[in-house]
Amino acid sequence: MSADDVKVSGHGNVGLSQREILYDPNVPQPNHAEFGRTLAGKASKGTLCTMSAKKEGYPYGSFVIYSMYNNSPIFLFSTLAEHTKNLIRNPKASLLISEDGEGNPLALGRITLVGDCVKLPKHEHESAKEIFLEKHPQSKSYADWNDFSFYQLQVSSVRYIGGFGKMSWVKIDEWVDAEPDPLENHATDIIEHMNDDHRDAMILMCKFLSKAKTTSDAEMTSIDRYGFQMLAKTEQGEEKIRLGFDEEVSTPDTARIALVSLVKKARTMDE
Amino acid sequence: MSADDVKVSGHGNVGLSQREILYDPNVPQPNHAEFGRTLAGKASKGTLCTMSAKKEGYPYGSFVIYSMYNNSPIFLFSTLAEHTKNLIRNPKASLLISEDGEGNPLALGRITLVGDCVKLPKHEHESAKEIFLEKHPQSKSYADWNDFSFYQLQVSSVRYIGGFGKMSWVKIDEWVDAEPDPLENHATDIIEHMNDDHRDAMILMCKFLSKAKTTSDAEMTSIDRYGFQMLAKTEQGEEKIRLGFDEEVSTPDTARIALVSLVKKARTMDE
Repeated sequence: MSADDVKVSGHGNVGLSQREILYDPNVPQPNHAEFGRTLAGKASKGTLCTMSAKKEGYPYGSFVIYSMYNNSPIFLFSTLAEHTKNLIRNPKASLLISEDGEGNPLALGRITLVGDCVKLPKHEHESAKEIFLEKHPQSKSYADWNDFSFYQLQVSSVRYIGGFGKMSWVKIDEWVDAEPDPLENHATDIIEHMNDDHRDAMILMCKFLSKAKTTSDAEMTSIDRYGFQMLAKTEQGEEKIRLGFDEEVSTPDTARIALVSLVKKARTMDE
Repeated sequence: MSADDVKVSGHGNVGLSQREILYDPNVPQPNHAEFGRTLAGKASKGTLCTMSAKKEGYPYGSFVIYSMYNNSPIFLFSTLAEHTKNLIRNPKASLLISEDGEGNPLALGRITLVGDCVKLPKHEHESAKEIFLEKHPQSKSYADWNDFSFYQLQVSSVRYIGGFGKMSWVKIDEWVDAEPDPLENHATDIIEHMNDDHRDAMILMCKFLSKAKTTSDAEMTSIDRYGFQMLAKTEQGEEKIRLGFDEEVSTPDTARIALVSLVKKARTMDE
């Protein structure tokens, strides 16, 4: 876990304010491997890049659905599909997974997983099928057809881009060891709840736990095991504020306790 | 213009009903080149596949925004981006553009444009910039930076996939000649209007201009220069119904006239 993604370089400031960061830049946050594993676990579709059998030497992009099987994506491919023909001839491939969201699309996260994409051995078929159909129940009707097979992209390199200026090649052992965020499936509910019912508490946290002293409104934009982010409305405009939890959380309950503890801390400072 | 995309082959029936088609299969409809040009014109983001400079021999997928410049996509790339480094070494590339939408993602349309992606000559810079910024005004802040350049994918092959079983390699001269649908920017409004205010008329058209005699409700799902599609609620379930206009339309006004004419025809048959 490191704070390396707040270091900006190159075009790090494209489209962003060049004002001072109003929170502790060393606040704990997911590293690129963890961001990537969380994104890969949450999304279900991407672009598979293969080497075209028809157009020699050209990379070919096709739309695919996938599920994560441990740390690598698996697919259910028809022998008729262009990418399957390509992979049979040359297994070299990559999968681009992009975050969905509003606003400037280049500010959203994405990862490219590079490696060989090969047919899964027969003995792994059943466990792959179970994991795949859990995410893609609509594929049940053809999962057992003879000309459909499970493929796996054996990830050997990972490129992470978290928006403008936040990018790195992720070390493969970090990728393998990283865990998707445990709040992944609860984040939307927590954010909605906080924004509906706890604006005052968030304003207080911005005012007393960050440098955004003039905050008049605050909206939670993300939450993860290490902390959460808000957009604070200040006299200088909208400011991104990230606060860290005292310790890593893993469930909505422990997240709630950690949030309450920060609100209490802010209240003490308000006295 | 041909009706070849209603021919299903291979896995054409995956996830679809195997019942009889309840409308004239020869009804005029956009050909694959026209579908593709319309999709490319409507969308603004995609996946660029390039040949990795870092991982020799591997195709590399990255998220990009683009605009159509005549019949080929243009991009505004930073020299720092991975894909730019890749293209400088090897211009071979492809761009996957996928339709957005609800429901089974594999049922949505997409195209892959294959070709060499190269820097635009200086004298085309200004016109490219104008077209690019019209679609991506948020890129204005860095469009003139020294280390950003316009690139163009010189399309030499086009793969179209319109959902299950609807796919083809589009002939390049058809691609070059095809025009995006003139109703492209109006379709959403027309569909909303028809579904809000003219359900009865659509039920009538389904009942008397198709074989869906038991239609009790009908919803427009798409409209183009050659006709429109509805989802008809019948005693047998939901049925896709496509009806063609008597002649090609090019504006919301001519579309309205063509729709009114079909409703009148249906009314005559109801008497």
